[in-house]
Amino acid sequence: MGTHAGFILWFTGLSGAGKSTLSERLVAEFTSRGYRVELLDGDEVRTHLSKGLSFSKEDRDTNVRRIGWVARVLARNGVIAITAAISPYREIRDEIRADVEKEGRAAFVEIFANAPVNALAERDVKGLYKRAIAGEIKHFTGVSDPYEAPLNPEIEALTSVESITESVDRVLNYLAEKNLIDAGA
Amino acid sequence: MGTHAGFILWFTGLSGAGKSTLSERLVAEFTSRGYRVELLDGDEVRTHLSKGLSFSKEDRDTNVRRIGWVARVLARNGVIAITAAISPYREIRDEIRADVEKEGRAAFVEIFANAPVNALAERDVKGLYKRAIAGEIKHFTGVSDPYEAPLNPEIEALTSVESITESVDRVLNYLAEKNLIDAGA
Repeated sequence: MGTHAGFILWFTGLSGAGKSTLSERLVAEFTSRGYRVELLDGDEVRTHLSKGLSFSKEDRDTNVRRIGWVARVLARNGVIAITAAISPYREIRDEIRADVEKEGRAAFVEIFANAPVNALAERDVKGLYKRAIAGEIKHFTGVSDPYEAPLNPEIEALTSVESITESVDRVLNYLAEKNLIDAGA
Repeated sequence: MGTHAGFILWFTGLSGAGKSTLSERLVAEFTSRGYRVELLDGDEVRTHLSKGLSFSKEDRDTNVRRIGWVARVLARNGVIAITAAISPYREIRDEIRADVEKEGRAAFVEIFANAPVNALAERDVKGLYKRAIAGEIKHFTGVSDPYEAPLNPEIEALTSVESITESVDRVLNYLAEKNLIDAGA
């Protein structure tokens, strides 16, 4: 409940890999169990914290760092902070993890939404991959910009081959095992 | 306790008017009573959210809006968010209040740390007023930049004539009256 320790669920993965879908399912699940939970998605943060930033490497790093700071402040106040930005660079994610762990007031749980580019490009729900491959979108992660997969994520969700429910259960089981949430609803 | 509704204590006032001093006393008081509390002071926010912003009117407004958004996200998750930035412009403060009240998940309590410029310039703890009056610091609120006092703050602390304890008690009494905190320790 409200007095529980907070933690950060840090999703990382390519566009379309399921970060937002899984996040939203988890928000509903945590809310129904009475936890405080906040989803920091890329858009809300861009509007409120990062207006004016470009899609250059430096500005994207700044955007991800800001998400990290807000998530840290929330989590140290007992909130479950879920972030769902692509966050393509390992160094920046690891820097945020290090800040959280150094502070020692919350856990950092990295979830790799792992789906191969070709599967995402084939499904291409929003038509973005097609446009990126055609060169119409610059700096598109996984196509024209790098994506650095986590080396040791706490959780890996194979979103192109497993169902949403399987991925969500995997996350919930991990959190219960680590005593970050109470077991079973 | 942790399941209490959050609220924002929004300090506004000139440099040296006591915003930080009162904020820190309130943080200690709330913490000892078991509340979640987070102080967003100008420096931490500048480091994490607003690096690169100048002291132009537009950039200062952006900085204050970002503090407002973080405070709102914290407060809607049951945290007492205290802000201690000068926040000189009424329009920006009122915009943040309107966002919080429209959302309806937390209260916005504006505290005017009210001390006249001449009293602050006389005391001048950090020597800033002397330098500002000499023209060595540009855009110094109350000297070379405007300060717009709140018209209807929830609380007014006359920090040049009343003691810190009197001001703190005034805040605590207001909050207890409004059922935002439990009465008395």
